[in-house]
Amino acid sequence: MSARTNDRPNPDRGYLVPIGGAEEKFRTPKILSRFARICGGKDARIAVIPTASRLAETGPRYETIFTEIGVGEVFTLPFEKRSDCEREDWLAQLESANGVFMTGGNQLRISTTVGGTSVAEMIRERNRTGALHVAGTSAGASIMAEHMIAYGDEGSTPRSDMVTLAPGLGLTQNVIIDQHFRQRDRLGRLLTSLAYNPRPIGIGLDEDTAAFIAPDDTIEVVGSGAITVVDPSEMSFSSMDSAKRNDPVSIVNIRLHVLAEGGTYDITTRRAVAAEEALETN
Amino acid sequence: MSARTNDRPNPDRGYLVPIGGAEEKFRTPKILSRFARICGGKDARIAVIPTASRLAETGPRYETIFTEIGVGEVFTLPFEKRSDCEREDWLAQLESANGVFMTGGNQLRISTTVGGTSVAEMIRERNRTGALHVAGTSAGASIMAEHMIAYGDEGSTPRSDMVTLAPGLGLTQNVIIDQHFRQRDRLGRLLTSLAYNPRPIGIGLDEDTAAFIAPDDTIEVVGSGAITVVDPSEMSFSSMDSAKRNDPVSIVNIRLHVLAEGGTYDITTRRAVAAEEALETN
Repeated sequence: MSARTNDRPNPDRGYLVPIGGAEEKFRTPKILSRFARICGGKDARIAVIPTASRLAETGPRYETIFTEIGVGEVFTLPFEKRSDCEREDWLAQLESANGVFMTGGNQLRISTTVGGTSVAEMIRERNRTGALHVAGTSAGASIMAEHMIAYGDEGSTPRSDMVTLAPGLGLTQNVIIDQHFRQRDRLGRLLTSLAYNPRPIGIGLDEDTAAFIAPDDTIEVVGSGAITVVDPSEMSFSSMDSAKRNDPVSIVNIRLHVLAEGGTYDITTRRAVAAEEALETN
Repeated sequence: MSARTNDRPNPDRGYLVPIGGAEEKFRTPKILSRFARICGGKDARIAVIPTASRLAETGPRYETIFTEIGVGEVFTLPFEKRSDCEREDWLAQLESANGVFMTGGNQLRISTTVGGTSVAEMIRERNRTGALHVAGTSAGASIMAEHMIAYGDEGSTPRSDMVTLAPGLGLTQNVIIDQHFRQRDRLGRLLTSLAYNPRPIGIGLDEDTAAFIAPDDTIEVVGSGAITVVDPSEMSFSSMDSAKRNDPVSIVNIRLHVLAEGGTYDITTRRAVAAEEALETN
């Protein structure tokens, strides 16, 4: 059974860069620098969207970081209310950006504030056509996919009712993203998410670790931790339909990869290559 | 704020016909007859998928009903295990069908059994290109959309944790479907589903009532009950990001329509017309 029900890659899409939270920001901000380069470095125009956070300093803080990295232009769009997401001046600024960075906080703040507005539509449409690269950390990573983990419980065993899924920004339907993965013991909630319907793959991002998802749906791992890829395409059984509330859920034939920096994963072919393997081949 | 972030209609798509359960099957099976006509009547080839049900008679029962209605060919594809969904003989039969009917039962039985398999891919792909019309009742209705209500609590007030969403078949991203709507007091869980991210619209189907969703994303209501359309595109506030578990959720500016038989709704323009209004205009 191959990945046949996933959407085919859209080679015209912009990059998607979910980050597991707590990314290095000062000495060697490898992930943020790489994202800035993809957006054009000194020619980049990055819009910081701090909606997930309730702290006023979040946007300006990332403005400083991106400026120090050498990004040509960076500005904050502090969408706080749904009506903010229809402001013509801010929409014009967003339209001028070729990169968006969504900060951490609470992903439900983003979905309830931005979901279904002109801002959401502009990000979706401009990413779809390749005009916009989108990165986000922690909550900003979770919001990206069609199916978003809104919140859930800790632990490595999947249990019914362990996780709450909600519609996200919908930039890809092919993955479900979780973050602070190892640090907050989230394998169970990612497995639970996939046990409902093993169509997408699961990506668990450790802190200070990013998945650079290229337009061709290949992933490269960057950062000091690892990403855990959970591929349910060979799953032969899930008991989610009969599990009682809070019961453990049985799932059979999950394929799992843990990939550190330099590792790659192709969402279409489902092939994982560790950095060390790639070196051996060369 | 208009429906700008919804996907545009795909005019090449086949019909989608979610039914609220308990549809009239014998004296005047209006909904099933209309679906049969759309599939070509005596030239129709309808595949019944009874996976949601655990009763062996469910498939043959619908075979009899569709045969009596005058459908040319009808057969059951009893996918029970995930490996069934890779059987070449059954896939060939499915490929020959121009209509699929999914029965009631438990929608998680369908998503855990069929999700991510060749059967799911074939239904998605053939519906997308217009080769296949898809109907389903109760669980078979819930499974159709991208975001599926897996289960939830009764009551009309939305509350945090009242509903569990999971990936469905993904035949449309523009609606969330609920069924047995009035009979099981499900307005609250539909509102809760939309409060996470007001991007899709909500459709609550009463029993013996169907939404005939045409390829241009216009809906016509058929049956003895009503459909409740919940349009969150003007929602100005949702408290879902701050609600504690089981707390009521505040939502502001929901537009709601209740449409009986002959009523229509355009998902793209969000315009509702009651049957009585249409008569006045004519």
